[in-house]
Amino acid sequence: EELFDFLGPNNRFIPQLSIDCVIFGFHDNQLKILLLKMKKMKMWSLPGGYVEQEEDIDSAALHILKNRTGLADIYLEQFRVFGKATRTTKESMKLFLEVNVADISNYEWMMKRFVSVGYYALVDFSKVTPSPDVFTESCEWFEIKKLPSLAFDHREIVDKALETLRITLDSKLVGSNLLPDTFTMNELQSLYETILGTPLRRNNFQRKILSLDILERVEKLYTGAANKAPYLYRFKKA
Amino acid sequence: EELFDFLGPNNRFIPQLSIDCVIFGFHDNQLKILLLKMKKMKMWSLPGGYVEQEEDIDSAALHILKNRTGLADIYLEQFRVFGKATRTTKESMKLFLEVNVADISNYEWMMKRFVSVGYYALVDFSKVTPSPDVFTESCEWFEIKKLPSLAFDHREIVDKALETLRITLDSKLVGSNLLPDTFTMNELQSLYETILGTPLRRNNFQRKILSLDILERVEKLYTGAANKAPYLYRFKKA
Repeated sequence: EELFDFLGPNNRFIPQLSIDCVIFGFHDNQLKILLLKMKKMKMWSLPGGYVEQEEDIDSAALHILKNRTGLADIYLEQFRVFGKATRTTKESMKLFLEVNVADISNYEWMMKRFVSVGYYALVDFSKVTPSPDVFTESCEWFEIKKLPSLAFDHREIVDKALETLRITLDSKLVGSNLLPDTFTMNELQSLYETILGTPLRRNNFQRKILSLDILERVEKLYTGAANKAPYLYRFKKA
Repeated sequence: EELFDFLGPNNRFIPQLSIDCVIFGFHDNQLKILLLKMKKMKMWSLPGGYVEQEEDIDSAALHILKNRTGLADIYLEQFRVFGKATRTTKESMKLFLEVNVADISNYEWMMKRFVSVGYYALVDFSKVTPSPDVFTESCEWFEIKKLPSLAFDHREIVDKALETLRITLDSKLVGSNLLPDTFTMNELQSLYETILGTPLRRNNFQRKILSLDILERVEKLYTGAANKAPYLYRFKKA
């Protein structure tokens, strides 16, 4: 049985502890996240998994991210633990398991209450190869403004991740992980607008972002011709 | 056996999950935290505990805080999960248990690896009645600059809590939970200085804090006499 092989013996993981990942990418001027379509259900879920007994929780999160995106070197941060006693119910997990396995009696441990550690990741959209896991039939990007119905408390997890991203926006980590090496001021402004969910005034934005002293302007090459292309910027090295 | 009564049956708690609390108070112009002295050992530890199967993790943290401080209504925030596989070892837990119980074989579950959720709390120093727990012989305040040797990875947990406090300092939550209802500008500056661990220039501090628009000045009563007492401030209501 494929699922059993994937999960291994009952005592492989720390009981009642899971990880859920909100993987942010930026494409077509929109902030997007990666979601998994649950088998035979109309619900989508966040990429997630469990923590092996001998594994650091950060390593477990990186492992999940690698399997879903194909990327080994990802910027990720823990942002919150979701620990309400009622966040997963035995009934909802039973429903979920019944479409995946013939005999759910082997999976009592999965029907217990789980505390979940939320991680968010910032990835270069163009480098990701989305891959579903053993519980899911597809893995796709969704615009943050147009999310489908999400399983369990995953909508709350996405909202908290986005809130954290907004709070940390003025550190260069967000932009430098979501944008290519060089970018125009317009691209940077679009990224801020899609994260904040609101349009920004061009002049104010430019003045504010330059005052943070985190950008450097890339020198234009002298081509001899009139050069009307916009300036390119990159983030200063630490 | 007292400890066994305290802990209850083996399946009472979520396995391998704990909570550690960094309880901040402000007294004599110093930032302090509450520590517990472990029985018969020269080590101190953070107040902590476990999460019951039917309990929200936030409720478990409040419960721990109430037992250690006597206060029911406390400002607390999760700030990080400590999840390195090696953060607690079977050997260190064995040592800890051997001084507390006659037969450690009942406590196999406590010797497993634990993932711990860190909470910090901000309390009114004057209202706290420090109380040790079943594993400890005393509960005392320590200046953040003069901490004793701490058990396990508790020093790292304190450092991370302090880092979070510094990052969130400019929201009024920190000051309004650590200071009395009204306070002088000097008291507020002392609080900032002890949290940041560095002296601040009086004029700069005053200009900056007033620009945040979170304070209001309390009107002086007209007493007829020359009034040389400093102005009192309080935080604006939300």
